[in-house]
Amino acid sequence: MTGKLPFEALSVETLATRLGANEALCARIGKGPWKVREVGDGNLNLVFIVEGASGAAVVKQALPYVRLVGDSWPLPLKRSFFEYHALIRQEARAPGSVPAIYHFDEAQALIIMEYLAPPHIILRRALIDGRHLPNIARDIGLFMARTLFRGSDLSMPTKDRKADLALFADNVELCGITEDLVFSDPYFDAKLNRHTSPQLDGLVAELRADRDLKVEAQRLKHIFAANAETLLHGDLHSGSIMVTDTETRMIDPEFAFYGPMAFDVGMLLANFWMSYFSQRGHEQNGKRDAMRAYLLGVTAETWAVFRAEFSVLWRTERTGMLYQKSLFEDQGDILASEQALDHVLHQIWTDLLGFAGIEVHRRILGLAHNADFETIADEDLRASCEAKALKFGRHIAVNRRQILGMDEVNTLATLIERERRI
Amino acid sequence: MTGKLPFEALSVETLATRLGANEALCARIGKGPWKVREVGDGNLNLVFIVEGASGAAVVKQALPYVRLVGDSWPLPLKRSFFEYHALIRQEARAPGSVPAIYHFDEAQALIIMEYLAPPHIILRRALIDGRHLPNIARDIGLFMARTLFRGSDLSMPTKDRKADLALFADNVELCGITEDLVFSDPYFDAKLNRHTSPQLDGLVAELRADRDLKVEAQRLKHIFAANAETLLHGDLHSGSIMVTDTETRMIDPEFAFYGPMAFDVGMLLANFWMSYFSQRGHEQNGKRDAMRAYLLGVTAETWAVFRAEFSVLWRTERTGMLYQKSLFEDQGDILASEQALDHVLHQIWTDLLGFAGIEVHRRILGLAHNADFETIADEDLRASCEAKALKFGRHIAVNRRQILGMDEVNTLATLIERERRI
Repeated sequence: MTGKLPFEALSVETLATRLGANEALCARIGKGPWKVREVGDGNLNLVFIVEGASGAAVVKQALPYVRLVGDSWPLPLKRSFFEYHALIRQEARAPGSVPAIYHFDEAQALIIMEYLAPPHIILRRALIDGRHLPNIARDIGLFMARTLFRGSDLSMPTKDRKADLALFADNVELCGITEDLVFSDPYFDAKLNRHTSPQLDGLVAELRADRDLKVEAQRLKHIFAANAETLLHGDLHSGSIMVTDTETRMIDPEFAFYGPMAFDVGMLLANFWMSYFSQRGHEQNGKRDAMRAYLLGVTAETWAVFRAEFSVLWRTERTGMLYQKSLFEDQGDILASEQALDHVLHQIWTDLLGFAGIEVHRRILGLAHNADFETIADEDLRASCEAKALKFGRHIAVNRRQILGMDEVNTLATLIERERRI
Repeated sequence: MTGKLPFEALSVETLATRLGANEALCARIGKGPWKVREVGDGNLNLVFIVEGASGAAVVKQALPYVRLVGDSWPLPLKRSFFEYHALIRQEARAPGSVPAIYHFDEAQALIIMEYLAPPHIILRRALIDGRHLPNIARDIGLFMARTLFRGSDLSMPTKDRKADLALFADNVELCGITEDLVFSDPYFDAKLNRHTSPQLDGLVAELRADRDLKVEAQRLKHIFAANAETLLHGDLHSGSIMVTDTETRMIDPEFAFYGPMAFDVGMLLANFWMSYFSQRGHEQNGKRDAMRAYLLGVTAETWAVFRAEFSVLWRTERTGMLYQKSLFEDQGDILASEQALDHVLHQIWTDLLGFAGIEVHRRILGLAHNADFETIADEDLRASCEAKALKFGRHIAVNRRQILGMDEVNTLATLIERERRI
C-alpha cells in the first residue's frame, strides 16, 4: 500500500498501478482498466480524475512545493492532512456541503474523493459567464453559519476545541501565505506583486501611501492571526466552490485553521463584489445589468441567510461554554441572550467588511489575481473595473465600523459602478 | 532519580531522602542534613522550603487534585509543566522578574526554584498592612509590557508562536477554572459561589439580573477564550507577586496560556482597586488616606509604565509579522506606525477595564475570595467595602468603551469611596 512508502508524486502513467489495489477507490469506480486525466486545480496541487467501469473519483495530491511555481517555492505536504481534517469536520457540521471522502493517505499526501462531474462548474467561472445560480446564497450562507458556529466555543466542548486548535496551529505555511499575500504584500512594493500597469499605477501609489488603509489592514491581520474562535475554511472564494443550478459544494479547505468567523464570510462576499465590478468587462454579448442586480442580491441574501441560521443555532445549539444559558435563558432573560447575539453578529459584520476590502485589494494588487478581472482582455477596460473595485475595497475596510448594513454597502457599490468620475 | 519513578507526592518526611541526590539542589544549598518545612502556596499545590548549609530553595509540587479541596476536585499534574515553561519564557523576556529555576521534573510535577527569603512578602499582604512599596508600579508595568509584547506576533516569528500556542493549548483545566470561576459563576447562583450574606444579598441579586453586565462578561469570556495573541501569566494578581521595598518578583504562572494582553493587565489593576476599596476595613490603627492615594497612584503609574515600555518595544523590537516596518517606517511613514500603536493600546485599554471589572466581581461573588476583604472581621464593614468595589467593577466593565483614561477611572473610584449613598 502506498501508505508505507515514502512520498512520490503520482502521474497519469503511474496512478493506475499505484492505486490499483486501493479498496476504497475500487469500491467506488470498479477495478481497472481506468481512464486517468490530470486537471489543474489552481495553483498548488496535483488533481486527477479517474474513471472506471462503475464510476469516477478525484485523486488530489499535494506536492512538496507550489505546483504553479515549482521547487523554488517549497510548501509542506502536511497541507493535505489539514485539508482532510477540515473536510471531515465540514461534512459533520454542514452535511452534504463538501465532496464525499473515500480515502486519505497521509504519507502520500493524497485524498481520494467524490468527483463532481459536469454540469458542476467552478462558481467563479459561472459568474464570469453571467449565469444566475439560484441556490448559492442559501447554500453558502448555511455552510458558513453551520461550520463557523459549530466549530467554536459556542457549540463545542472547549477541551475539544483547544485540542483541535493545537492540531491546526501547525498549518503554519498556508497561514503564512494568507498573512503575507493578503494582508501585507499588496500595501508595499513586494516582489511577487503585479497590477494592470501603467493604468493603475497612480491609484496603487495612492493606496500604498494611504495611512488609514494600511493601519486597518494590519489591525485585520492582527485579528486574523490572534482570534482563534473557530475552524475556518480559510480560502472560501468563488474559485473554491463548485455549483450546478441546484447544488453547491465547498472544496479545497487546505488553508483551514482556527481564526475569526468574519474572515470566511468577508472573503466570500468580496468575491461576489469583485464579480460585480468585473461584469462591465464581460458585456461583449450583451449588457450585464441583470447580472449585476443578481450579484448584489446574492450578497444580501448570503448575509441574511448566514445571520438567520446563525441565530437559529444560537437559540437551539448553544451548548458550549460561551454565553451559557445558565446566565440568560435559564434565568428567564431571553433578551439577554438576544442582546449578546446582536453583539456577536455586529462584531462579525464589522470585521467582515474589513476582510472583504482587503481581499479585493490583494486580488488586484498582489500575486494571486482572479479570473473575473484577468479574463478581461482590454487592459483599459480591465483597469477601469479594477479601479472601481479597489476604491470600493478601501471604503469598506476603512469605514467598516460606520457602515450600518448590506443595503448601504450595495448602494455604495452601485454608486461607484455608475459614477464616471470614480 | 525521581524522574524515572511514577508520581508520588512529597512530604516533609520524605523530601530529603527523595531529593538528596539532586545535583541542582545540592549545588545550591549543600548536601544534607536539610531543614524542610511545608508552606501553603495558596490553593493548589505543595510548597516546601528546604534549607541546607549553604542556602535554601523552594520545592513546589503539583498534586493530582486541588490541595485545598482534596481528591473530589481533580486537577492534572501537567500544570507544573506549563508553570515551568511559562517561567523560563518570562525570565527570557523580562530578565530578573521571576524566581530562578534550578530543576524541573515533569514526572514528579516538581519545580525546584529560588527561595525568596524574608523580607520578601506577598504583595497582597503588604498592601493589607498598609505598606507603600516604591517600585511595584515600575517593575510590574515593565514585566507586563515585556512579556506580553515579546510573546506575541509583534515580536516572535509566527511559526514559533503558533507552536507555543499549540503547546499551551493543552492547559485546558486551568483555563477552565478561569472560564468558569471568573467569567460565569459569579453571575448566576453557581454551587461554589459565596458572598457576605445577608448584607450583600440585594446587590448580588441586582448584579445577577443586570443584562448589560452579564452580556459584557460573556463578551469578555469570548475574547479571553478566542484571542490567543500572547503568552499570558494568566493569574497575575497581588497574591502572585512577592516584594521587598526594592524587589518585585512574579510567581505561580501555572495558569499560563495564549490569551489577550489585556487580561493580565486588567486582573492586576483590579487587585490594586480592590486593595483601595478594602483599606477602610483596615483602619483600626489609623486612617489609610495616604494608602488610598498611594494605590491610585500605583494604578496610574503601572499603566503609564506599561504603555511607555510597550511603545519603546513597538518602535525598537517590532520584528514579528504584524504591523511590519516595510509598510510603515520603511516607507518613511513614522506616523502610520504611531497610529497603529495608538489603536493597539486603545484596544488593550478598553478590554482591560472589562477584565478588571469582572475580576473584582469574582473575588467578592465567586469561589476564590481575597484576603483584602476576607481579613475584615466586621461583616457589615466588609460588606460595605465589597459593595463599593462591586459597583465600581460593574461601572468600568459596562462602560469600558466610553472611559477615556486612568484619571477618569481613579476619579470614579474616589467618588464611590467617598459617597455615603453608594
